[in-house]
Amino acid sequence: MTENQALNPTAGIIIIGNEILSGRTQDLNLSYIADKLGSHGVKIAEATIITDEEAVIIKTVLEYSKAYDFVFTTGGIGPTHDDITAASIAKAFSLDLEVNNTALTMMENQWGKVKQDDNRTIMAMMPVGAKLIDNPISGSPGFNIENVYVMAGIPEVMRAMLDCILPSIKHGSPFNSQTVKCYLSESVLAKGLKEIQKSHLEVEIGSYPFWTKGSFGASIVIRGTNNLEILKTVKQVCNLIKTLGAEPIIEVA
Amino acid sequence: MTENQALNPTAGIIIIGNEILSGRTQDLNLSYIADKLGSHGVKIAEATIITDEEAVIIKTVLEYSKAYDFVFTTGGIGPTHDDITAASIAKAFSLDLEVNNTALTMMENQWGKVKQDDNRTIMAMMPVGAKLIDNPISGSPGFNIENVYVMAGIPEVMRAMLDCILPSIKHGSPFNSQTVKCYLSESVLAKGLKEIQKSHLEVEIGSYPFWTKGSFGASIVIRGTNNLEILKTVKQVCNLIKTLGAEPIIEVA
Repeated sequence: MTENQALNPTAGIIIIGNEILSGRTQDLNLSYIADKLGSHGVKIAEATIITDEEAVIIKTVLEYSKAYDFVFTTGGIGPTHDDITAASIAKAFSLDLEVNNTALTMMENQWGKVKQDDNRTIMAMMPVGAKLIDNPISGSPGFNIENVYVMAGIPEVMRAMLDCILPSIKHGSPFNSQTVKCYLSESVLAKGLKEIQKSHLEVEIGSYPFWTKGSFGASIVIRGTNNLEILKTVKQVCNLIKTLGAEPIIEVA
Repeated sequence: MTENQALNPTAGIIIIGNEILSGRTQDLNLSYIADKLGSHGVKIAEATIITDEEAVIIKTVLEYSKAYDFVFTTGGIGPTHDDITAASIAKAFSLDLEVNNTALTMMENQWGKVKQDDNRTIMAMMPVGAKLIDNPISGSPGFNIENVYVMAGIPEVMRAMLDCILPSIKHGSPFNSQTVKCYLSESVLAKGLKEIQKSHLEVEIGSYPFWTKGSFGASIVIRGTNNLEILKTVKQVCNLIKTLGAEPIIEVA
């Protein structure tokens, strides 16, 4: 981590869901959250995918809450027996679980009157003191307690919730990146890249090999919060590639 | 977890790579590993995505190695400065890092003679005592030390390596699952599903809401190692859906 990046707020992501760990569902939330947080200058330090088990949720949430500025969870806030995120997080912070009347009103605004014995009221059960996260897609809100933001698992809903959260949290200098591709093997690039990284500690240089249509090459990703340093490093990487007899290809996102 | 499943070996997955945490790359390895291990009766207890930092890799590998029967890592075994997985894992287990001559031979069999100052020799650097994992795609092998299996990050290579590992590790009763879809809201299903789960503790019933073409519904996934219990539970879920006035749709994988 560079000195500059040390000033960026940090986040940990907790993806709650047996369906991801069983291989049934391909997680699509992490890359979206990572991209959004990065452009708001929040550095994701770690992400984890855990089972729908109370003890596991409690342990992970408390560890992450202590270690990082923000924690984002996805999944487990529906009305069925396997949705235990809200109850587990209440327990983690030794808070009672209650029907949040504002949440109930938000749900009723979207769906009409909810009867007391309707299972949907389960989705209004939240830790005492929870701040709500709006859900413009399907009505039932997420919530925030301490530095933990509890979001839905369905990608469309999660995205809408994250968009509601972002303006309210502390931002850092946005992360930007530039990718330079070339048809050289990583082994050929390794020594030169190491030297460039050494003289540009404010950016992170990542090297990712690829094979396309029988040709192998590498994508060099230069990432950081100091745009001038990114540009300087990109130039040096392009020069390195040319020196090695190949053509640098700047990737346009 | 059911009594039956308690006999299944457990695994933790560690995905090493800044590119996943930055949102640049969508991880595709976890769902593949999960699916393969599940069909071999290995239960994934947890997965984590961490940065390319030595201290983080060491801490996570040791925690997982202690907690689970098997640990699988992906990423960070190329020849560039950001590939620090092998060195970090050697440190984690207090082992020296050495040029593994068998690994070097495997690489030379694929690529021809490798000179001593060739950066590709970096990929043959492994902890003393490492057992090699064959890489039929690009030559340079992964390795196994203690209960940790170190694989490449590139999906094609990781898959080939996993296929080489699977026959050699302890299997359990394979996990199977059946999915029943219906066009009912989860709230309507919640009470009945909870009852069915209570009387079928040997399977896990997961409920996942969806929206398609303006209609909402839920996919009910019944998963476990006891196929008869899965079948019985599927029948009960179908009956529940019919009782609630909708049509159960058995998902064909």
